[in-house]
Amino acid sequence: MKVIVAPNALKGTLSAQHAASAIARGAKRVGRALEVLEMPIADGGDGTRDVLLAARGGELRQVEVHDPLGRALRAQFALIDSGRTALLDVATASGLALLCDPERDPLRSSSFGTGELVRAALASGCERLVLGLGGSATVEGGLGLLAALGSPGLDSTGRPLPLGGRALPALAGFDLSAARALLAGRELICLCDVETRLTGPDGARLFAAQKGADENALRLLDVGLEQLALCLEAHSGQRVRELVSGGAAGGIAATLSALLGARLASGIDFVLDQLGFDEALAECELAITAEGRLDRQSLFNKGPFGVARRARAAGVPTLLLAGAIAEDLDLAQTPFESALTITREPLPFAAARGHAAAWLESTAEQALRLYLLARPKP
Amino acid sequence: MKVIVAPNALKGTLSAQHAASAIARGAKRVGRALEVLEMPIADGGDGTRDVLLAARGGELRQVEVHDPLGRALRAQFALIDSGRTALLDVATASGLALLCDPERDPLRSSSFGTGELVRAALASGCERLVLGLGGSATVEGGLGLLAALGSPGLDSTGRPLPLGGRALPALAGFDLSAARALLAGRELICLCDVETRLTGPDGARLFAAQKGADENALRLLDVGLEQLALCLEAHSGQRVRELVSGGAAGGIAATLSALLGARLASGIDFVLDQLGFDEALAECELAITAEGRLDRQSLFNKGPFGVARRARAAGVPTLLLAGAIAEDLDLAQTPFESALTITREPLPFAAARGHAAAWLESTAEQALRLYLLARPKP
Repeated sequence: MKVIVAPNALKGTLSAQHAASAIARGAKRVGRALEVLEMPIADGGDGTRDVLLAARGGELRQVEVHDPLGRALRAQFALIDSGRTALLDVATASGLALLCDPERDPLRSSSFGTGELVRAALASGCERLVLGLGGSATVEGGLGLLAALGSPGLDSTGRPLPLGGRALPALAGFDLSAARALLAGRELICLCDVETRLTGPDGARLFAAQKGADENALRLLDVGLEQLALCLEAHSGQRVRELVSGGAAGGIAATLSALLGARLASGIDFVLDQLGFDEALAECELAITAEGRLDRQSLFNKGPFGVARRARAAGVPTLLLAGAIAEDLDLAQTPFESALTITREPLPFAAARGHAAAWLESTAEQALRLYLLARPKP
Repeated sequence: MKVIVAPNALKGTLSAQHAASAIARGAKRVGRALEVLEMPIADGGDGTRDVLLAARGGELRQVEVHDPLGRALRAQFALIDSGRTALLDVATASGLALLCDPERDPLRSSSFGTGELVRAALASGCERLVLGLGGSATVEGGLGLLAALGSPGLDSTGRPLPLGGRALPALAGFDLSAARALLAGRELICLCDVETRLTGPDGARLFAAQKGADENALRLLDVGLEQLALCLEAHSGQRVRELVSGGAAGGIAATLSALLGARLASGIDFVLDQLGFDEALAECELAITAEGRLDRQSLFNKGPFGVARRARAAGVPTLLLAGAIAEDLDLAQTPFESALTITREPLPFAAARGHAAAWLESTAEQALRLYLLARPKP
């Protein structure tokens, strides 16, 4: 029998590639003729570039850019399709993981570095730019990114806004000539791992607290995101507030869509299409996916959910292996036929994470042994 | 299909009965025609009395006795078979769980209270006495138990020894007339959950550190256990050191066997026989067992091991659900066809234990869903 192993990264602990290897090692220990197809996935979050690069082949390019707080940073983007497509993650230059806890502050954090990375990718001559939006540290509607392309947001006197979410309420308009010139004739695709809108209580502000915003900052960002929506609607004539995933990466999605014609795609569906998941699945009897932590909030549009949805459509059951499954999650409402956790000893997360690869391997082995028990012997 | 659910207690967290109920609830949520046979088990450890009492029916009797440090304690024993068989756990009056950490000291702890309980059971007129040996706080060869029956250990001047392991090196002989009179014509069965011998590095002293012995105490207990073996051999003419399980309950097993003709039985095998496990198993397709923590040391002769060994002999696969599985345990060397852990979030034990029932239920459900995936639909 053939099993497709399509895990997401266990965020902050294991890359998708390492997770796939660990599960495959466990499967090999089962000792019955198990064919394993490793297909690490990503959903637009941190690591999307590397998953697509590994699957499609290509090269990494290095650039000097700036991190969310303006410090120098060496960052990379990838070129695939003989250089025609550039792959970038917002998390690379503007990611939350770049900041230690006390540094996390969406009033200051900016996506300027991602703009520098975009600029370098465009300079390489690519025709298509695929931008993974997950894992950002910012809530500033991508104004930093625009500024790096030469098109900063402007205040009511026509002056460029300073960087960071704090300036959003002062936004009055745009001069997009520089950015449009750079992007002319190229395709821009944003990979989203949330369906969050730009504004409202469930909008981009929903993730601002995770990015370090306190109550005061949240109130300021509420005003700022409203102002951004107003300016985007005035400039584009589009109903920006209704845009599904418009709030992804602190509003980068809404801005790039409204002002620069970016296409907003479901990260997991785009990645699965690129990997040829459906074709590979057709030969498989079981799909195994993995995730770091699953809760009600983070479930939809995340990688494992997409894997299971497609597998179910193809009549293939999916087993989820997770580092943690929140008790508030009703597994019956998910597309997973079975969902197990990998924690082999009760330990706090900081102590448990070092065991993740071994535990994932062991749990995959034991779960497959259980699955095979009831299977008629060949 | 029919599943037998035969968990051990998750020590200090869930009784075997509660564990069985949790697994059964999980099985019922699977929503396919699953017949569940709940059969909570015990292996001679804490809770053995209650598992047998629940399965066989009978009554509890209450007695005023003394705890390992001589404090008053209300304790219970059970009568089954219309009063012909008495069930007692050493842990009830002489258990480690009765002491807080700083009180744990095998040089002081005594099995006197268990002797009082035995005496009360004999006074009830029972013909057979079944004593679960697991979970004791003592390493004093049951001299306290003997003292409570009127037959204390004697020093070289013929005077009774004081209670606790510290007195063992001074042991010189016994006057067993009182104890033998009490036990005359009755059967005494000791249920052991370890195969530990009385003496040597892997003898009763192996568990003394868990019972609170420091390095000095261990050296003293080494001498004391040697002296006990010498006296038991002199008195009984038996090769006491070679007795399998003789070191159970800090040597209570060896003493009762050598001096009072007790039969040492494997706790799990005795319990499974009493429960009619083999007969029930014959109708089942899968066995599910559970345990708090599994490591290399604690594996053999523990309840789940016995369940899996018998199930394998009957051609029925066993799934183990555990609170923790130590990384040093090679699952391939165990009789479990699959072994999964129940921890749904990485938490330290103190925080995790409150979730044990919910997690056991959830993991049982998800595991059964996985098992059923490959099973041909009826």
